[in-house]
Amino acid sequence: MRVLYDLKNNYLQMKKYRMILLLAMLFPTVLLCGQTKYYDAAQFPLIGKITTQTETRYERLPAALKNECRPPVWNLGKNTAGLAIRFRTNSTSISAKWDLYENRYMNHMTATGIKGLDLYAWEKDHWQFVNTGRPDGKSNEKQIIANMTPTEREYLLYLPLYDGVTALSVGIDSTTTIQQPVLSFPETEKPIIVYGTSITQGGCASRPGMAYTNILERKLNKEFINLGFSGNGQLDYEIAEVMAKRHDAALFLLDFIPNVNTTQIKEKTAKFIGILRKENPETPILLVESVIFSHSVFDQSIEAIVAEKNSTLKAECDRLRKNGDKNIYYLPSHNFLGNDGEATVDGIHLTDLGFERFSEKLYQAIKKTLH
Amino acid sequence: MRVLYDLKNNYLQMKKYRMILLLAMLFPTVLLCGQTKYYDAAQFPLIGKITTQTETRYERLPAALKNECRPPVWNLGKNTAGLAIRFRTNSTSISAKWDLYENRYMNHMTATGIKGLDLYAWEKDHWQFVNTGRPDGKSNEKQIIANMTPTEREYLLYLPLYDGVTALSVGIDSTTTIQQPVLSFPETEKPIIVYGTSITQGGCASRPGMAYTNILERKLNKEFINLGFSGNGQLDYEIAEVMAKRHDAALFLLDFIPNVNTTQIKEKTAKFIGILRKENPETPILLVESVIFSHSVFDQSIEAIVAEKNSTLKAECDRLRKNGDKNIYYLPSHNFLGNDGEATVDGIHLTDLGFERFSEKLYQAIKKTLH
Repeated sequence: MRVLYDLKNNYLQMKKYRMILLLAMLFPTVLLCGQTKYYDAAQFPLIGKITTQTETRYERLPAALKNECRPPVWNLGKNTAGLAIRFRTNSTSISAKWDLYENRYMNHMTATGIKGLDLYAWEKDHWQFVNTGRPDGKSNEKQIIANMTPTEREYLLYLPLYDGVTALSVGIDSTTTIQQPVLSFPETEKPIIVYGTSITQGGCASRPGMAYTNILERKLNKEFINLGFSGNGQLDYEIAEVMAKRHDAALFLLDFIPNVNTTQIKEKTAKFIGILRKENPETPILLVESVIFSHSVFDQSIEAIVAEKNSTLKAECDRLRKNGDKNIYYLPSHNFLGNDGEATVDGIHLTDLGFERFSEKLYQAIKKTLH
Repeated sequence: MRVLYDLKNNYLQMKKYRMILLLAMLFPTVLLCGQTKYYDAAQFPLIGKITTQTETRYERLPAALKNECRPPVWNLGKNTAGLAIRFRTNSTSISAKWDLYENRYMNHMTATGIKGLDLYAWEKDHWQFVNTGRPDGKSNEKQIIANMTPTEREYLLYLPLYDGVTALSVGIDSTTTIQQPVLSFPETEKPIIVYGTSITQGGCASRPGMAYTNILERKLNKEFINLGFSGNGQLDYEIAEVMAKRHDAALFLLDFIPNVNTTQIKEKTAKFIGILRKENPETPILLVESVIFSHSVFDQSIEAIVAEKNSTLKAECDRLRKNGDKNIYYLPSHNFLGNDGEATVDGIHLTDLGFERFSEKLYQAIKKTLH
């Protein structure tokens, strides 16, 4: 009995020690895993900018334009549509702190799309959605994802579509490391530069990654530069000058029709394109018709206006081609948003459903244009 | 010359009189066309309610439940998810005035989805999106559509998904008429009653019409009753009692898994279904697995929890079938949201893209179940 008792006692004691040892080993890990260490995003590559010569890091237009372009265009340049941070980490969780420029509100777009963050990770052969940072105010601190395996991964963090970012840092488990990306995805050589309207800027995607330029960036794994200016894609020549300086552009995609009237199309399209052409005689230019707005099934006035503007653009395109421009392409609006009328939030601005459908049409057109 | 002069003079005078006459005829019409006359929506049919015995018109739960069910469930019953007004008019424009219960805000859903209105019209053989009423505050007055042909049409006006409505009126051109609907679309006989979570309630559709119960209502042209309670689809037996009283139900669709844990699934599923079965022994019941959350590709904890809950539901379903229930159906979560990870705003809540994909899967399952 004594032997048995001793054995049992020893066994229980051993089990107790083992448990204490295990807890002692785990404790610092658990403690440290629970801590988030932040790194200023300024040290990581930022993609989607037309130039680095900006007033602050997270904005779209060159500082030189401050007193040169129309004030609404300048202000919209502060919105970070299409900008994204690239980094690499083995952290099991990822957080972010970000301060907003305006803390803007709109009644037809989520705060997550207007002023949130959207994280993707590279998985084998594609960019996979991870999760969003949902904003609560002008200053935000949010855990985006947790409980991941401690695998070294490449990340792509999209910035807000309809607000600006004045400060940004990325948080990881304090025991892990964050580094420069190794992969050059999305490929930043020969970017695609997109000029346009509120739809181009991403209105009304539910989260930054669903703006069509960002969907296409992932789909083609190629840098897109978003020059969408809500309500202000009005063929401002200063913007054409800025675009023209990017001699490395693979394509200029022009999607401005909803923001101009027929007079403006006739007066400004050829001149705007002329500015691009002066320095980029061979670069493909893709002219995109206006989306047929969903409510135009019923609103006859809107239907007529859009039809007239689209045909005016077609005439301009034909004239440019006739005058010898062989690298100008045209995308008619047929079926951009499918045929069920369900792809917008307000007849005009695309939801994620609309952006998914529209980007598929653009994807096909871009592939054809580039080959 | 004199004759010619007289003739010309007469002609000019005649032209002048004709113009004055025309203006006099047009003036009141123009004046009246520009005016909107409002009609209290209380006089028009309201679809999507489980019972008419409610505290106020625009809410979901019977007044008798006020002190019977958990307070969060009662409060969510004030949200008008799935409710819609039916009317008929030949007006060229349609407006609405509506007052909200809470004037609620969420950072991952548009105000238009939370507390806006969404208008559809019957076109030949389907419900066609017209446009939304986008909210600005607790009291709203908005023109939803204008510039239509003065055609007599049937309309379906969806109410807010995540807020309540305390007053509602529909505005039309003051020269036109508004009437009771003639068509009985959506068919209100044998409604489909859906019980569930925030996703069921419509989180996070961009506009009311994109909640999956509303998509299916149009697609099947059959009344759906939405008993989705954000965070609170916890198999409350009081709700089963309310559902059980609808002996006319074509189908009970149960989609509650995201809001319960495995213990609750084991303890409450059979009892909840037992309450439905007591009064409806033959009515088909469709058990729906939880959506596989988009961020579970990375969040291993979420992935494991959802997998365990879904398999627990499957075991419950198998047991009920084994015990003789021949009218219980099961829908596994395979590919509910497609396979690109893009269908949610926050990993969990569906965007319009997610709802379009999910409702297609549910549509196929419901058609199979009902035949």
